[in-house]
Amino acid sequence: MSESTRRRVAVVGATGVAGQQFLVSLADHPWFDVTVLAASPRSAGKSYTEAITDNGSLRWGCDELMPARFADQTVVDAEHLDLDSVDLVFSAVESDAAKVLEARFAPEVPVVSTSSAFRYEDDVPIIVPGVNHDHAALVKRQQRERGWKGFVTPIPNCTTTGLVIALAPLARRFGVRSVVMTSMQALSGAGRSPGVIAMDVLDNVIPFIPKEEEKVQAETSKILGKLEGDQIVPMDVTVSATCTRVNVRDGHTESVNAGLGEPASLQEVAETLRAFGGEFTDLGLPSSPPELIHVTEDAFRPQPRIDRKLNDGMTTVVGRLREDKVLPNGVRFVLLSHNTKMGAAKGATLVAEYLVHQGLV
Amino acid sequence: MSESTRRRVAVVGATGVAGQQFLVSLADHPWFDVTVLAASPRSAGKSYTEAITDNGSLRWGCDELMPARFADQTVVDAEHLDLDSVDLVFSAVESDAAKVLEARFAPEVPVVSTSSAFRYEDDVPIIVPGVNHDHAALVKRQQRERGWKGFVTPIPNCTTTGLVIALAPLARRFGVRSVVMTSMQALSGAGRSPGVIAMDVLDNVIPFIPKEEEKVQAETSKILGKLEGDQIVPMDVTVSATCTRVNVRDGHTESVNAGLGEPASLQEVAETLRAFGGEFTDLGLPSSPPELIHVTEDAFRPQPRIDRKLNDGMTTVVGRLREDKVLPNGVRFVLLSHNTKMGAAKGATLVAEYLVHQGLV
Amino acid sequence: MSESTRRRVAVVGATGVAGQQFLVSLADHPWFDVTVLAASPRSAGKSYTEAITDNGSLRWGCDELMPARFADQTVVDAEHLDLDSVDLVFSAVESDAAKVLEARFAPEVPVVSTSSAFRYEDDVPIIVPGVNHDHAALVKRQQRERGWKGFVTPIPNCTTTGLVIALAPLARRFGVRSVVMTSMQALSGAGRSPGVIAMDVLDNVIPFIPKEEEKVQAETSKILGKLEGDQIVPMDVTVSATCTRVNVRDGHTESVNAGLGEPASLQEVAETLRAFGGEFTDLGLPSSPPELIHVTEDAFRPQPRIDRKLNDGMTTVVGRLREDKVLPNGVRFVLLSHNTKMGAAKGATLVAEYLVHQGLV
Amino acid sequence: MSESTRRRVAVVGATGVAGQQFLVSLADHPWFDVTVLAASPRSAGKSYTEAITDNGSLRWGCDELMPARFADQTVVDAEHLDLDSVDLVFSAVESDAAKVLEARFAPEVPVVSTSSAFRYEDDVPIIVPGVNHDHAALVKRQQRERGWKGFVTPIPNCTTTGLVIALAPLARRFGVRSVVMTSMQALSGAGRSPGVIAMDVLDNVIPFIPKEEEKVQAETSKILGKLEGDQIVPMDVTVSATCTRVNVRDGHTESVNAGLGEPASLQEVAETLRAFGGEFTDLGLPSSPPELIHVTEDAFRPQPRIDRKLNDGMTTVVGRLREDKVLPNGVRFVLLSHNTKMGAAKGATLVAEYLVHQGLV
Repeated sequence: MSESTRRRVAVVGATGVAGQQFLVSLADHPWFDVTVLAASPRSAGKSYTEAITDNGSLRWGCDELMPARFADQTVVDAEHLDLDSVDLVFSAVESDAAKVLEARFAPEVPVVSTSSAFRYEDDVPIIVPGVNHDHAALVKRQQRERGWKGFVTPIPNCTTTGLVIALAPLARRFGVRSVVMTSMQALSGAGRSPGVIAMDVLDNVIPFIPKEEEKVQAETSKILGKLEGDQIVPMDVTVSATCTRVNVRDGHTESVNAGLGEPASLQEVAETLRAFGGEFTDLGLPSSPPELIHVTEDAFRPQPRIDRKLNDGMTTVVGRLREDKVLPNGVRFVLLSHNTKMGAAKGATLVAEYLVHQGLV
Repeated sequence: MSESTRRRVAVVGATGVAGQQFLVSLADHPWFDVTVLAASPRSAGKSYTEAITDNGSLRWGCDELMPARFADQTVVDAEHLDLDSVDLVFSAVESDAAKVLEARFAPEVPVVSTSSAFRYEDDVPIIVPGVNHDHAALVKRQQRERGWKGFVTPIPNCTTTGLVIALAPLARRFGVRSVVMTSMQALSGAGRSPGVIAMDVLDNVIPFIPKEEEKVQAETSKILGKLEGDQIVPMDVTVSATCTRVNVRDGHTESVNAGLGEPASLQEVAETLRAFGGEFTDLGLPSSPPELIHVTEDAFRPQPRIDRKLNDGMTTVVGRLREDKVLPNGVRFVLLSHNTKMGAAKGATLVAEYLVHQGLV
Repeated sequence: MSESTRRRVAVVGATGVAGQQFLVSLADHPWFDVTVLAASPRSAGKSYTEAITDNGSLRWGCDELMPARFADQTVVDAEHLDLDSVDLVFSAVESDAAKVLEARFAPEVPVVSTSSAFRYEDDVPIIVPGVNHDHAALVKRQQRERGWKGFVTPIPNCTTTGLVIALAPLARRFGVRSVVMTSMQALSGAGRSPGVIAMDVLDNVIPFIPKEEEKVQAETSKILGKLEGDQIVPMDVTVSATCTRVNVRDGHTESVNAGLGEPASLQEVAETLRAFGGEFTDLGLPSSPPELIHVTEDAFRPQPRIDRKLNDGMTTVVGRLREDKVLPNGVRFVLLSHNTKMGAAKGATLVAEYLVHQGLV
Repeated sequence: MSESTRRRVAVVGATGVAGQQFLVSLADHPWFDVTVLAASPRSAGKSYTEAITDNGSLRWGCDELMPARFADQTVVDAEHLDLDSVDLVFSAVESDAAKVLEARFAPEVPVVSTSSAFRYEDDVPIIVPGVNHDHAALVKRQQRERGWKGFVTPIPNCTTTGLVIALAPLARRFGVRSVVMTSMQALSGAGRSPGVIAMDVLDNVIPFIPKEEEKVQAETSKILGKLEGDQIVPMDVTVSATCTRVNVRDGHTESVNAGLGEPASLQEVAETLRAFGGEFTDLGLPSSPPELIHVTEDAFRPQPRIDRKLNDGMTTVVGRLREDKVLPNGVRFVLLSHNTKMGAAKGATLVAEYLVHQGLV
C-alpha cells in the first residue's frame, strides 16, 4: 500500500485512558482512519459515549476534548475484532490482556502496542522514534519465524522513553557505559485501575513503582542496542534506576548521571543533544515534533507543568547539564518526557507513521 | 556549670518559622529556659503574640500549637541583645543577618546556629549528633585563636543532615568513595520569605535549588572528615547531588547511590545502619531519638507524609536498600530526613545538649 | 454491667481504613478490650498484620502508628463472628455489607456503626455526642419492637456531624429555620475502594458527591429533632447543601448560612456556640474533648491542615462568624470537622462510651 | 477612528503576571498593536526578556509560551509613558499604583484596567461583556465632567465576573433578589507578590480572602444595575459571599444559591442561561467566545482543571442546576469562571474590542 492510501485502524482498549489518548492522537490524522473502537465485552455494542459514561458522568481522562467523531461510534468486543476490516491495530490494553489479544491480532495485521506483553522477546523490536527506528527491520524475522502476516511492535515503558532519547545521541558519539537515574514520575503513568489514590500521594512521595526499574534496565539496553543481521545486540550499559511517584499529573522528570565512553565537554554534549534526530524529524511524519530534544539553559527548568506542553509533548526537554565527577567521563542532567504523549499513544502513532513510511504497514 | 544547672537561652530570629521551631523544641526543655526572644527591630517591644500577628491572623507556622508560655513574652531587638543575661544563643536568622549578629554574640556566649554564616570556616565545626560530635572539641581552637569566650557551632544545611547520618556508619565501617544523590525536598526548607509560591509548585517539580548542591558537597566532606589535632581533615568523597523541590510540606527524600571502600553485603549494610549511633543515643540527651537510623523493609517506604513523624522527626528512615552495579562496591537506598526537626531547630537543640554534656556550655 | 467492668468489643471491617481508625481509637481504651477483629473471608485466619499487607507493604492508612497489640491478633470472618464472645460491636463496613451483617449482630449485641445501613429507620437513633445523646433512649423501642437483645446506633455521615454540632446550640436557643451549606470535603471521606484518584483531584475541585446532599438534609432534621415518647419528631429545617471534594487529606470545611428563628447578635451566637455541650463534656467520657465547639476570631481560620488536630479531631472549629443579610435572622460562618475522628471511629467510640454511661451496653 | 484602523496600545505593568496575560491576549491581535511595554523604573530600559529574567530564569507565569515578538522590545518607565504614542492603555498594575498611573493616563487616552482603583466611582462603569456593555455609554459623562479626552473602564474583580455572567440572564428574565455564594478560588487570583505560599495551602483550604466579599457585593449590584440617563442605578440584590482559597492553579469555582423574582422551572433557567449573550457573541469580536455560558448536565462538572480551558477560558460553565428550597423561588448551581482569562486580561481585551466597536476608542 502506498503512503498516500489511508489506513483503516482499530484502537483496542479504546475506553481506557491510554485508548482515549490514541483517539486524540488519531482524531484528525492525515493517514489513519479509526474505523474500529474495540474494548471489553462490557462495552461492546454501546456507543463510545455510553461506554465511557459512568453514573451520568463522562469518564474522559484527556486534557483535550473528546473528538466528536467518536461520540456515536459503536464499540466492538476486542475478542471478536474482525481483522479483515483493518490495516493496523493500536493496542492500549493492560499487559495480561495484551498477551492474549495481541497474539490473536499480530498473525493477521500489524500491531503497535503500548503494553509490555511482547517487549522482551528476541524477535520483537521496541521502537523509539529517532533512536532505533532501524530496528523496525526486525519485524521481517518475526513474520518469517512465526509465520505471521502481521507483527507486533511495542513502544517502551514511558519511563524508558525519555531516557533513551537523551542517551541515544550520547551513546552514538561518545558511548555510554553507566547510568544512575532517579525518576519523579507523574500520576497518569499509573492509569486509573486503580491508579494512585489521592490520599496516598498528597503531601508525599512514593519511592517505589513495582517492576519499573527492571524494565528501564532491560529496555534501555535493548533499544540502544545494535541490529546485527536479524539480531539485536543489547548495548553494554548498566542502568541503576530508582523510580518514584510524585504529585504531578503528567510528565516524568528524571535526574540522570551518565558515564560516557570518552571525555566530552559540556558544550559538546549540549550540541550533540541539540543536533539529535534531524534525520528523523526531516521525514516530516505527521506526529513528529520539529526537534526530538530541546536543551534549556534555564537552571530552573525543565519543569513538568511548564515544559510538558512543548511540541505537544513530543519533545524531550533536557536541562541542568553539568559535569559529574563520580562516574568516569560523567555528565549529569535533568530531563522531562511527557509520559502520555511521546511516552504513550502519540509516540506509538509516530512509530506507526514510520512503519507506513517504511512500507511495513 | 554542671549539667543540672538550667541554662538561660536566647532564641534569635524567634518570629520566623525556624525560630518558631526552636520555641517548640525548647518549650518544656529540662535544661534550657528561653529567657530571651530576639528578633528584628520591627518586632522589638511587642509581645511575642503581637509580633507574629499580621492582619489579625497569627502567623504561626509549626504543626504544634504555639507554646502558651511565650505568648506574652516581650520580644527584644536582636542587635541589642544583652549577652550577660544568657548562657547560650540559638540563632535562627538568615545567613546575611547571621554573619553580623553571630559575630557579635559568639565572642561572649556560645551560639548554636541553623545558618550557613560560619559553616565553612576552618575552626568552626558543623556538628551532627551521632556523626561527628567529637568535632565539638574544635571550639577550643576557635576560642583560643579568636580570643572568644563563646563560640559558634552551626548545624548543616537540612539536605546534608540525612545524607551524612546515613553515610557515616558506612564510611566508618566500609569507607565511602563516591555518592550520587537526587533529593526531593520539602517546601518548608525554603521558608516563607518568599518561600515557594503555590502556583509554581502545584502539579510540578522544580529541579534546582540555588547553592544547595555545593553545600551538600562541602558539608558532607567536612562532617565526615576526621578531627586531627585541631584540624578537620575532610573525607575524600565526591558527592554528585541534584537537588529538586517537590510539593511536600515537610521531609526531604533523597535517592542515594554510594560507592563503598570495600565490598559489603546488603545484610551487612543494613546491620551497620541499624547499629549506628548507639553510643550517642545511650547518652539519653533530652532531644535524642531512641535510634538515629531506622531501616525499613517495606519497599514503598520511606514516605515523607508517613515517616517524617517517627520519633518526632529525629530519626532518619532508610529504605529500598539494594545493590548498585554502577558504582564500585555500590549500594543504593532512599532516605527520609525531617528537615525542620533533626534538620533544623530540634537538631540544633540536640547539639546544644551535647555541648552541655561535654561541659562546653 | 457497671461502668467499671471492661467490655469485650469486636471491630468489624477491621482491615479497612475506617476499621483501622477504630483500632487507633480503641488501642488503649480504659473501658473497651478489642477481643475480636473481624473482616471479610479473604482476611480470615490471617494475623492482622498479614491481612493488611499487600505486595510486601503494610496498608495502614492512619496517621498514627498501627497499635502493636493488634499486630498478631488473628482476624476472624465477620459472617461467623461469635456473638457470645463480645459485649459490643463496632461496625466499620460499607453500607451494603452492613445491611446484612448488622442485621445479624444487633439481635444479640449492641452495634455502634459508621454505616448508613440503618440510619433512616424510625426506631433507630443517629447519635451525635452532645447534640442528641438523649435519643439513645430510642433503642429501648428498637429492642421491644424487634425483639432484639442488642440494638444498632449509627453515627451520621461525616458531613452532617460538624453541621449538626454547630447548629444544635443555635437551634436550642434561637431556632434554626433554614440552612445553606457548601462543603469542601476531604479525600479520606471517600475511603480507598476506589476512593478519589489522585489525577482526578490534583489542581481541581469535584463539585459533586453522590447521595451526600440528601443525607445531610435527612440526617440534620432527624438529629436535631425531638424525642417525644418513643418517636423522633424531625426538626423543621430546610438544608440546601452543595457538597464538593477538594484536595485535602482530612477535615471537612463547611461554609454555612443559617436563618435563625429569632434575631441574635453575633456576640450572642458566639457565646452560645462556646457554651455548648458543657453538660456532655462534664461527663468526662474517655474520648470526649474538653470543648465540643471552639470559636476562633482569626479571620483566616479554621483551616483543615491546622485546626483538624485540635483535641485530637474531636472539637468542631467555627470561624468567620458574620451576619448574613439574605436569610431571615441570618448568620454565617465557616466550620471545620475532622471527618475521620469525630466524624467516624472516634466519634462512634464516644457514642459507645455514652451508651455504657447510660447503662445501655 | 474606524474599526479597521489598527490601534497602538500600551500594556502597563507588562512584567507582572497580569501584564503577561495581556501580552498573550494581544500577541496576534487583529486590531491592536502592542507598541509600548511599560513597567516600574526598575525594568525600564531593559529588553522585555531581561526585565522578567531573575537569577538566570525567565519569570514567565502563563501557560502559553512568551510571544516571541515581545522578547526584545524595550520596557519603558510607566511613569513617563508617552501618551501621544498610543491610542489605548491596558493597565495591569496593583490598585495603589493604578490610582496614580491611571489618573495620569485617562485624561489623555482610554484606559481599560484590571485594577480596582476607579471601580467604585459613580461615573465609572465596570463593564462585563454581554452583561452590561451598554454601561460603556457612561464614559461620556466621565469625559464631560472630568474634562478628560480619555476615560477609564475597569473590569470587575475576577470573583465577580463569573457570578454576574450567570446572574445577568436570570436577573433580566426572572429578577434576582438574593444570592448566597461560596467561592473556591484559584491561586493565580492572588498573583505572585507575595501570592499564596505553597506550604500554607498544601493539604488545606484558606477560608478568607481580604476585601473580596465586599467587592463581590458592591460590584454585582453595580454591574447588574440599570443605566438611567448617565446614572447607574444599582440592582437591589443582597449577595452573601464567603470567599475561600483552594489548591487550584486557575479557575474560580462558585457554589451559588439564588432567589429569583418569580418562579422558574429548572428547564426555563437552563434555557435562559444557554440563550444568554447571543446579541453580544454575534458581534464576532476577536476575543469573544461562541457562547458566554455553557450549561453542563454532567453532575460531576464543572471542574476547574477540565472546564477552565473551554473556549480559551472565555466561557462561564454552569452545572449542578437544582432547585433551592431555602430562598424564595430559589435555584442553585455551581459555576466555573477562568480568573485569568475572562476574569482578567482577555476579558479586558474583549471590553476594549467592544469599545472600539462602539467608536469609543
